[in-house]
Amino acid sequence: MILVNGVETGMLDALDRGLAYGDGIFRTLLLRDGRAVAWARQYAKIVADCGRLDLPVPALAALEADLACIAADTRDCVVKIIVTRGSGVRGYAVAADLIESRTIAISSPMPIYPRDHVEHGIVARVCDLRLARQPALAGIKHLNRLENVLARREWNDTQIAEGILLDAANKVIGGTMSNLFMVRGNTLLTPDLSACGICGVTRERILAAGSRLDLKTEIGEFELKDLYSADAVMLCNSVIGVWQIRTLANRHWQPHSYVRMIRTLLEQDFD
Amino acid sequence: MILVNGVETGMLDALDRGLAYGDGIFRTLLLRDGRAVAWARQYAKIVADCGRLDLPVPALAALEADLACIAADTRDCVVKIIVTRGSGVRGYAVAADLIESRTIAISSPMPIYPRDHVEHGIVARVCDLRLARQPALAGIKHLNRLENVLARREWNDTQIAEGILLDAANKVIGGTMSNLFMVRGNTLLTPDLSACGICGVTRERILAAGSRLDLKTEIGEFELKDLYSADAVMLCNSVIGVWQIRTLANRHWQPHSYVRMIRTLLEQDFD
Repeated sequence: MILVNGVETGMLDALDRGLAYGDGIFRTLLLRDGRAVAWARQYAKIVADCGRLDLPVPALAALEADLACIAADTRDCVVKIIVTRGSGVRGYAVAADLIESRTIAISSPMPIYPRDHVEHGIVARVCDLRLARQPALAGIKHLNRLENVLARREWNDTQIAEGILLDAANKVIGGTMSNLFMVRGNTLLTPDLSACGICGVTRERILAAGSRLDLKTEIGEFELKDLYSADAVMLCNSVIGVWQIRTLANRHWQPHSYVRMIRTLLEQDFD
Repeated sequence: MILVNGVETGMLDALDRGLAYGDGIFRTLLLRDGRAVAWARQYAKIVADCGRLDLPVPALAALEADLACIAADTRDCVVKIIVTRGSGVRGYAVAADLIESRTIAISSPMPIYPRDHVEHGIVARVCDLRLARQPALAGIKHLNRLENVLARREWNDTQIAEGILLDAANKVIGGTMSNLFMVRGNTLLTPDLSACGICGVTRERILAAGSRLDLKTEIGEFELKDLYSADAVMLCNSVIGVWQIRTLANRHWQPHSYVRMIRTLLEQDFD
């Protein structure tokens, strides 16, 4: 099901600035038994990201109506919400009278990942592409995602579930579609995303879960050597949940109890 | 008029990867008396940019059919050609069986700029935003243009016709919608675009025009001080042609004969 400004349709105005310039943001979330997981955090991120790009914020009621409409169709699915600056005339400048953004809500089936990803962890690789450092866009889940597309095109091997991205300064940022955490002793560490990367809702939830589990949390700058020396490395997003890395280059890890605990907490709809 | 894969329609599949990720490229060109200006160079850039992103290249005949269709409607207009990786399922990975891209051709009226822009030059400003350095995307006219959108939002003063963009290393790159040239003695200088910026067709044409006019041409790294000390600074793209900068901060320039000569050559359809 696809809703554009609340109306069911598969089509979008070809002059939408989301297409022209990637002028918009998006979120991906789960509907579980008709309820949007971590919805308060998801909406807060929509508000924050719209604020960063000076996009009119879609009304909570309008988005909740979209979710209800989708839930009436399918109780369990993935929902992607896109917010764009609507249609525009040619040129980067925005009409001064723009007061509403456009929302596109798209449901798709719950993906089926191998059980093994959760039970034993995944095989990951380090991508060649280096993310550009752009503080003006860092953290935002905006529609300019060519770096992710190019990074994802670096491998075809279906045994490799995710690629790790470093930035131009060789700092670890995350996966092509996920945020990254390391476990070191009783500390959860995750990269600082003030120069690039996306601040995901599951990353926020894991930071909160860490406190709940009496783990220390640390946001900082990390390099590949920190990854290799960690007790565990996990990748997360709203759809996959948490996957621990089993193999990265020549390094192998066993399932770690903290990863299991965090996963359990997230699945219990801890928010 | 809007043509999607050659069919007149204003609507686009909401699952297009151009919207989802900015996964595509575009060109903007003039139709003058029904003929696409510098079309051979424009198509060559489409081929080159598609190659950089590993996008299937649209057939020359298909794009020329679009141009003919638009020309039958309006002899003089601006045409924007967008090429996207078509529709996709959720996720950055591209279906292995993708063999065709999607093309969107959009005509819009010829914009009317003040005569003054050509006769006496424009007022420009230096943008605060710094372009991120990303060699993997540099030069390509791709659909990830949030930096340009944000830079263009820095000013509302209608007296200011364009903003100058520097990169994270404070090198001059160009305008928000234009390439930049300096005149120093009998040399035309333009920024190297291997780390960021867009290599426009008019930039190529001016480099060719420079040789024709027995001017030396130099592609290099320049800072703001080089701009201020230049004999003339001009901005160019396929729609505006060539605008000399009259005022930038406290620096003022008189119209320069080389700028006039280059403009004349471009208007004579020199290619």
